[in-house]
Amino acid sequence: MYDRIKGFRDFYPAEMQARRQVIDTVEDTATAYGFREIGTPALEPTEMYVDKSGEEIVEELYAFEDRGGREVALTPELTPSVARMFVEKQQELSKPVKWVSTRPFWRYEEPQQGRFREFYQTNVDIFGSADPAADAEILAVAADALSALGLSDDDFDFQVSHRDILGGLLESFDADVDTTAAIRAVDKRAKVDDDEYFRLLSAAGLSDSQAVEFDDLLETPEDELEDLVAFAGTDRVEAAVENLKNVLDAATDFGVRENCTLSLTTARGLDYYTGVVFECFDSTGEVSRSVFGGGRYDDLIEGFGGQPTPAVGFAPGHATLGLLCQRAGVWPAEELSTDYYVLQVGDTRDVAARIARDLRGLGHVVESDISGRSFGAQLDYADSINAETVVIVGEQDLENDEVTVKDMESGDQTTAPVDGFPGDHDRPTFEDFA
Amino acid sequence: MYDRIKGFRDFYPAEMQARRQVIDTVEDTATAYGFREIGTPALEPTEMYVDKSGEEIVEELYAFEDRGGREVALTPELTPSVARMFVEKQQELSKPVKWVSTRPFWRYEEPQQGRFREFYQTNVDIFGSADPAADAEILAVAADALSALGLSDDDFDFQVSHRDILGGLLESFDADVDTTAAIRAVDKRAKVDDDEYFRLLSAAGLSDSQAVEFDDLLETPEDELEDLVAFAGTDRVEAAVENLKNVLDAATDFGVRENCTLSLTTARGLDYYTGVVFECFDSTGEVSRSVFGGGRYDDLIEGFGGQPTPAVGFAPGHATLGLLCQRAGVWPAEELSTDYYVLQVGDTRDVAARIARDLRGLGHVVESDISGRSFGAQLDYADSINAETVVIVGEQDLENDEVTVKDMESGDQTTAPVDGFPGDHDRPTFEDFA
Repeated sequence: MYDRIKGFRDFYPAEMQARRQVIDTVEDTATAYGFREIGTPALEPTEMYVDKSGEEIVEELYAFEDRGGREVALTPELTPSVARMFVEKQQELSKPVKWVSTRPFWRYEEPQQGRFREFYQTNVDIFGSADPAADAEILAVAADALSALGLSDDDFDFQVSHRDILGGLLESFDADVDTTAAIRAVDKRAKVDDDEYFRLLSAAGLSDSQAVEFDDLLETPEDELEDLVAFAGTDRVEAAVENLKNVLDAATDFGVRENCTLSLTTARGLDYYTGVVFECFDSTGEVSRSVFGGGRYDDLIEGFGGQPTPAVGFAPGHATLGLLCQRAGVWPAEELSTDYYVLQVGDTRDVAARIARDLRGLGHVVESDISGRSFGAQLDYADSINAETVVIVGEQDLENDEVTVKDMESGDQTTAPVDGFPGDHDRPTFEDFA
Repeated sequence: MYDRIKGFRDFYPAEMQARRQVIDTVEDTATAYGFREIGTPALEPTEMYVDKSGEEIVEELYAFEDRGGREVALTPELTPSVARMFVEKQQELSKPVKWVSTRPFWRYEEPQQGRFREFYQTNVDIFGSADPAADAEILAVAADALSALGLSDDDFDFQVSHRDILGGLLESFDADVDTTAAIRAVDKRAKVDDDEYFRLLSAAGLSDSQAVEFDDLLETPEDELEDLVAFAGTDRVEAAVENLKNVLDAATDFGVRENCTLSLTTARGLDYYTGVVFECFDSTGEVSRSVFGGGRYDDLIEGFGGQPTPAVGFAPGHATLGLLCQRAGVWPAEELSTDYYVLQVGDTRDVAARIARDLRGLGHVVESDISGRSFGAQLDYADSINAETVVIVGEQDLENDEVTVKDMESGDQTTAPVDGFPGDHDRPTFEDFA
């Protein structure tokens, strides 16, 4: 016996079917918006992550030297890989580039509820549009995906902020502020106590009174955003506030405005965001963590050696998304479904195989005996795979050119002409012959 | 700029769409037979592979020590993982267990045509049936998948053999034969010259004359299989020949018999096969390597600490399968497809967004402007994504409650009532309004 590695998971069929349904729903939503699937490697050069996130990222990576002496890492996120791919074909790609993919990523972190060392994300990104409509389309795809999963507007809330408002406000203080550190402090605001939060702001360069003032500004309601422009008195904050308003206006056109709440205290931890950022939260608070997030990152492509290219995206993680679906009661049933089981009695394999083949040709899921088992054992198996209809192909029935059709829910059964199965029927059931 | 790692691939949308279509076709075929999707980890304990395949396998592995001191390896194949999963829930699983999954695997080998360090396989396995019908079902799923891809019976051939016939024949010689080494020699028969082949058989313990005799036996035609039974005079060979005949009989019932050719020189390199084995070849020989293979491996589960459990499966690799599809001219077109582009002229974003939303609700792929671009730039973009129909939402048309519908192939255009788009139409096009 071997043990699975800590933080990694096996998915057996019933659970996998539910997961696949959720993944397909998110992907299909993005596809309907014209996002195109891409495929990316599981290994990338370690330096790609170190350059982007600093040497400390290595502690979280599954990084090693391969047999050819390359320093490689299991990809901890998709963004650097898509940035690399975009830069490689930047000239020939028709813009905006809209890409989607679902795959596992790996981080050496302590597993906890909704967090694993191997975790699945669907990444949805737009490259090449700085227009507020691109930000709004990302919000719309996210909301549509959640709706398609069966979640209602009451189930989730997008808390929307703007990195450049935060950065512009910090810049406007008469202090030498480490903006990155200060934004990281904001990101931790809900997770640490007040003392720690203000200590972090102080460490970032704000005086005690500036920190309090800054924190007050973060509570500015949506209809008073002009106060921030007045406070800062800079073009930067003015442009950022204007941009945020334009994104929210576009969100109205895209039907996603009511899912959005202004929340300047939402910062998103990742350093590369540059404009609108958002996080999706469970409205009931039962799932206490951010379900997923996204935002604009206009500097990354240039940082990867490409031409300056605006970009915006989001990436639902399927572990936390699953927690939200479960909380809301919309997680798909974890059970197998089977349309037909073709039961063989006696030496009827050839006829059973013909019927099974024809039913499969109509698009149904069909099993038949491949173990030479008894009537009872076959019926038990058909029950275990939740077969809806059992077609009993018995030697005696066949003498009359008949099969028996059994509805597994009611237990009712009747005979049907063997040639009528499926005959002209698209999905023959007990009702068709009773 | 960063470089992709050697032997790893990026898939851009057009190619990815073709690959996805092929993967879906193979998976859908297995699903119709009641195979259920599972999910498995990318990392497993290195010892799992060493125990199964010997210390030399490490040379081919991406193996390393993780931060917790575990010796781990990127999975080079699926079988050990599914064996581990099966053993873990052996008691509660309803048999036969039928599992399918598609994912990447990794081997540190020299890349060549159709071989990469990161490669994708669809694994299809049955656990818990020793019946010849299970072997035949695997052959049938394989053939049906190829048919569903558009390949005809003339395009491919399953060369079918039986490990226990080979093993039983070798055992019947008056010599101390290393069966594994001899079967590996048979596996290399087509790849090395005769001298090398006979040298390998000799190294496995056969005398020169025995090697020639053994090789002659491998050419036995299907209607003379009893000669092998007579030659060996053992229950083992008798049972193996009987089993092979029964599998071919079941293949007849399952409609796959004509795809199968007896070929005792087909050995399959992997040591764990125990019964019927097969390899799929390109009938034209243009793809010179085996496209994929499979077979019965009845001892593996016990080797993983489980109850003795018969098993049979196959695993098409998508690189070689792609070569066959390309050779046969059935590889899907590598181009994007888009149902609608909703073009905005002037300040019409709200109406355009409503139309796009409604069309998406009908299941279509719909893009619209998210870049604030000109008429011409939008039309060029719509062309670049192969949009079938462009719906032009212009301020002037809207004053008459109309939009313009343009068929991109013909270039024809006409007006349509804005409320009629989509209105009652499932898929409104130029023809509906011309």
